[in-house]
Amino acid sequence: MIEINDKSIRLKLGSFELMHKKDFPMFAVGYGENTYEMSHGNFNISKYYKIKIPLREFKVISKTSESYEILFYSHSGEELKCRFNISMDALNIEILSHSEQLNRFWIYIPASENEEIYGCGEQYSYLNLRSKRVPLWVSEQGVGRNKREIITHFANFKDDAGGDWYTTYFPQPTFVSSKNYYAIVHSYAYSEFDFSHRDFHELEIHEIPQKIEFGVGESLIDTVIKLSKNIGLPNPLPEWIYNGVILGLQGGRDVVMPKIMNALEKGLKITGLWIQDWEGKRITTFGKQLMWNWVYDESMYPDLPGMINQLKSMGIRTLGYINTFLALEGSLYKEASQKGYLVKKNNGEEYHVVVTTFPAALVDFTNPEAREWIKNVIKSNMIGIGLSGWMADFGEYLPTDAVLYDGTQAELYHNRYPVEWAKINAEVVQEAGKKGEVVFFMRAGNLYSAKYSTLFWHGDQLVNWSRDDGLPSVIVAALSMTMSGIGLTHSDIGGYTTLAKNVPDIVVTKRTKELFMRWAEQATFTPVMRTHEGNWPDENWQFDSDEETLEHFARMSKVHYALKPYIKHLVEEYTCKGKPIIMPLNLKYKVDNVEELKYQYLFGEDLLVAPVVESGQNVKKVFLPDDEWIHLWSGKKYSGGIYEIETPIGYPPVFYRLSSRWKDIFEKAGGVE
Amino acid sequence: MIEINDKSIRLKLGSFELMHKKDFPMFAVGYGENTYEMSHGNFNISKYYKIKIPLREFKVISKTSESYEILFYSHSGEELKCRFNISMDALNIEILSHSEQLNRFWIYIPASENEEIYGCGEQYSYLNLRSKRVPLWVSEQGVGRNKREIITHFANFKDDAGGDWYTTYFPQPTFVSSKNYYAIVHSYAYSEFDFSHRDFHELEIHEIPQKIEFGVGESLIDTVIKLSKNIGLPNPLPEWIYNGVILGLQGGRDVVMPKIMNALEKGLKITGLWIQDWEGKRITTFGKQLMWNWVYDESMYPDLPGMINQLKSMGIRTLGYINTFLALEGSLYKEASQKGYLVKKNNGEEYHVVVTTFPAALVDFTNPEAREWIKNVIKSNMIGIGLSGWMADFGEYLPTDAVLYDGTQAELYHNRYPVEWAKINAEVVQEAGKKGEVVFFMRAGNLYSAKYSTLFWHGDQLVNWSRDDGLPSVIVAALSMTMSGIGLTHSDIGGYTTLAKNVPDIVVTKRTKELFMRWAEQATFTPVMRTHEGNWPDENWQFDSDEETLEHFARMSKVHYALKPYIKHLVEEYTCKGKPIIMPLNLKYKVDNVEELKYQYLFGEDLLVAPVVESGQNVKKVFLPDDEWIHLWSGKKYSGGIYEIETPIGYPPVFYRLSSRWKDIFEKAGGVE
Repeated sequence: MIEINDKSIRLKLGSFELMHKKDFPMFAVGYGENTYEMSHGNFNISKYYKIKIPLREFKVISKTSESYEILFYSHSGEELKCRFNISMDALNIEILSHSEQLNRFWIYIPASENEEIYGCGEQYSYLNLRSKRVPLWVSEQGVGRNKREIITHFANFKDDAGGDWYTTYFPQPTFVSSKNYYAIVHSYAYSEFDFSHRDFHELEIHEIPQKIEFGVGESLIDTVIKLSKNIGLPNPLPEWIYNGVILGLQGGRDVVMPKIMNALEKGLKITGLWIQDWEGKRITTFGKQLMWNWVYDESMYPDLPGMINQLKSMGIRTLGYINTFLALEGSLYKEASQKGYLVKKNNGEEYHVVVTTFPAALVDFTNPEAREWIKNVIKSNMIGIGLSGWMADFGEYLPTDAVLYDGTQAELYHNRYPVEWAKINAEVVQEAGKKGEVVFFMRAGNLYSAKYSTLFWHGDQLVNWSRDDGLPSVIVAALSMTMSGIGLTHSDIGGYTTLAKNVPDIVVTKRTKELFMRWAEQATFTPVMRTHEGNWPDENWQFDSDEETLEHFARMSKVHYALKPYIKHLVEEYTCKGKPIIMPLNLKYKVDNVEELKYQYLFGEDLLVAPVVESGQNVKKVFLPDDEWIHLWSGKKYSGGIYEIETPIGYPPVFYRLSSRWKDIFEKAGGVE
Repeated sequence: MIEINDKSIRLKLGSFELMHKKDFPMFAVGYGENTYEMSHGNFNISKYYKIKIPLREFKVISKTSESYEILFYSHSGEELKCRFNISMDALNIEILSHSEQLNRFWIYIPASENEEIYGCGEQYSYLNLRSKRVPLWVSEQGVGRNKREIITHFANFKDDAGGDWYTTYFPQPTFVSSKNYYAIVHSYAYSEFDFSHRDFHELEIHEIPQKIEFGVGESLIDTVIKLSKNIGLPNPLPEWIYNGVILGLQGGRDVVMPKIMNALEKGLKITGLWIQDWEGKRITTFGKQLMWNWVYDESMYPDLPGMINQLKSMGIRTLGYINTFLALEGSLYKEASQKGYLVKKNNGEEYHVVVTTFPAALVDFTNPEAREWIKNVIKSNMIGIGLSGWMADFGEYLPTDAVLYDGTQAELYHNRYPVEWAKINAEVVQEAGKKGEVVFFMRAGNLYSAKYSTLFWHGDQLVNWSRDDGLPSVIVAALSMTMSGIGLTHSDIGGYTTLAKNVPDIVVTKRTKELFMRWAEQATFTPVMRTHEGNWPDENWQFDSDEETLEHFARMSKVHYALKPYIKHLVEEYTCKGKPIIMPLNLKYKVDNVEELKYQYLFGEDLLVAPVVESGQNVKKVFLPDDEWIHLWSGKKYSGGIYEIETPIGYPPVFYRLSSRWKDIFEKAGGVE
């Protein structure tokens, strides 16, 4: 519905409303300049605003039954011409033109005080973003991410790498409101979505965006589904991925194969072997690191194609690793450099970036030939040797002062770089005829990553229990991805980051047995279970560090496998219809304070999971929404309420709905020994 | 000179120029809101700008031979009416009125690329502020003040107390340009002076200020002198202050008196005993702290008036301590609380602030009765018992959400609070008839503190050699104060802050013997020498920790005393005529890179001091400007150039001008044994 008179504009879709009047202008425009300092993928961004002018005046230029063209302007001469396209459940605002020299844009959305806001991509600390000002910039997630954690300060000390509550690999200029509407801003420029004001939300975009979309749903879940469909759904996961865990191992054939044999013997359900060091490794002060030359290392993995076949015959797929860089020592770098496929500095030299400890070059995705070239590298060197998937790492490091092949401003391409990286990988899979068989997983992303990447993982968590960067944070990450329309996510079981060298003892955190086991329990109730040895494998507890751990992990892998029909169904419901998989409770039930309950989730509509995310917790207080619930492990019946649930290792609080059509599956999973 | 035509305004005074045209408007106005978080006097300030509109249009309203009234406006309706008063060497811009609902103000000043900018109050890290954006907010100076120093992170960890290069007790909305002009913005609102743009300086004020002044000088030193006179000159220091060092001791009569006797015996020239614990003490996790109830402690200092008299007869003055707080346990707090003299919260309760470890109440300086009351406390309890001076500590802690007696917004009074604290102390001295006899020294300040406070000290440095917070930083602090028109500064010899408890060994910094001695050497060539035992006296090296230190310190006290006629002359030249005392070399000589040479200074026109500010330095590279110089200790003659000067302990590089009329004094000082 649109109402326009001389003085005001009012657009209404369900309970969503946009308005414009002199003292509540819909838009402001301006001019500004940012300064970006990058340290190892972490950014310090200084913003300078030269002007910020509300566009208080407007004039309807033309009108059809479905659209209005309206000129917004200030008396000082700033203009913004927009087309509003209105349907039953969506409003598109296209920016048709604007006065020159504007590069900052604000849109104001009326807000209510008790409104809840979700999304903005992958958020690790807060689920409800009401009261927050959320920067949207692709970057490292940060180590610690909280100034009250001493490790954050150590990460900041030398590398400015400590991050903050909002630093993320995967921001997305979308959000969902508890007023049952979603918003999508079509821009890859640096942005800030400001939900901290009482009466309005202010979306700040550091360019004039092409388009802003709003859509409404009949319920919150319907809104999320519409958003998911709007930004695009990926292909279903391959069938094999549900058959157990993907084991992250490394160290060469002679290390890896015996570990697999031992694990199989102990009953671990293994569906994949993920060898990130398939292309060789190097030891640095940061840990065991990879070679970054995307050719298999014959000394570590002699006859890797043969080994891959052997494993395949045992029902185990092999996965590799690639990222957006090329190590300067490698053959691929030499070739790419000669052909001019690498990102450059403004003096014409190649831009070499120190990611952790050594410099590397970045492939220029704006160069169509470079894209084809890296696609062929993946096709022949990875798919060609039989790999069924890979981690497609990084995507956050495009420097803002880089010079790109097609002339695009790097500042405006930075946030898009991981999306193009996903698209390249997706094209490889498609062109190689491996859709539905090969899976690649990414951490970095932005708008439209959802439809290209086959799977996401939550990045490099600390190997601890911290809210902002440990086990609890991957739950918030999964939920915020869901609320951003993205369904397929998982994490490194046990976390990744240990700061072990050159730091005092009080900072060293090593993955404990308990953490590994609790993390595995949580991962059991996600679409994909995958381990990572971490950056210092020898310092951290592994799945086979002792018999008890291996037995526990084997049992959890069997529970996960027992849930295969249910999980597969959930994945298909998402990839076909956009239905969320890992959900906050309020997508199905009336819940008063979602933020307080954010470490509990629904895994599909029929499982409620309340993972243990604190050390030493034998009993956990669990909120069960108003329904009839069966405790997965004991079969005990519960109705809605708050309960103290016993949670010995191996038995996290999980409940299924009594009325579920998957009851038999759940009974089987709950009875696994 | 003012040129006005239809399209532009040009104001020119010497090499200073202001201009206005459509594409370079002189002013912008706007509306914004800040969020202030205070932790122990450290502030985290979030700025939100709702609008920022350049005022591109103007209209001359009236004109006389000396002034113009001009209306600046935007077509969107924002207006600012200014009166420009122009004389030969000054330009005043008075803001006569402005449209409602504006609370942000910007003025643009054309800049040149190689221009240098000095001042902004007390700056510890950078002298030349060109390329910096300088926030002006009274706060703790911070511990470490540099993210590359691990101690900064420890200070941040629990208390957000690490600071940054710009955090300061004493910001001042004034600056001096190498184009020989100064600027004074008459506002105590939060401000940012932005010198980072190539073509303009942008001064941002978080209110509409009353007045902005510009003045030009014939030279840089003439400009500084004019600024000094403009903001006000204090009274000369008391005669007694030149007679040696002020010893900072504590622990009660029985501790203090023997230390003095011992020091006198070793030849230390003592002119003052500063007992900060005259009002009692407490032991906390931060260290030995004071009682903050401004009554002398009879148990620690029985018959303090008698002791003061006794010391006076020996030529030693006694100094005490006071600050803006009242400890909740004290009798004075009870009285002030009953009378309603304390700063309140918006719920009507008293605002109790935790400064370090215990809560305390703040005296409300907007209440005339409270002012009289605290003045009488000082008069009777401090001057009344014979004290010749005191540290007037703090002034940075007025919370922005406090409620003040006279209704002033605390956000706009925060920066003014230390100025009123200085004024109160100045009135006490005046009304007690003790002008030129009593000295009080402050660290916090702002515009007009200069004329009220008798002396400043640089605050709480770390007991180390760090550039941003150790010995070197007090030199930059003194020079930036000079460039802000403030001449009378000194520091705690040896620094103050040790983080000794609850931190890992790598963070603990203790004052070493070498640091104490080098700091004493630097202090010798400042107006006042004063020691402080630091927050953890027992952990740190003191003036009498061994014989060698005491002998070295005694010798430096004699050198300082030998310089008395010269120093007294410098102080009088400042207090009467505004002539700077501690000067960067470019106030007298042509110097290419002042920033590189900022740890050398002129002490008056005839002494060049290049203190040793690094550990283990036996030889120091010294730049001597083009002149004829005599090495103070050896009498060796030097002409302009760069020299490697030997710097054994006790003999920092100091030179005097061959042609100085104070040659005899310098010879005597150089020959002290």
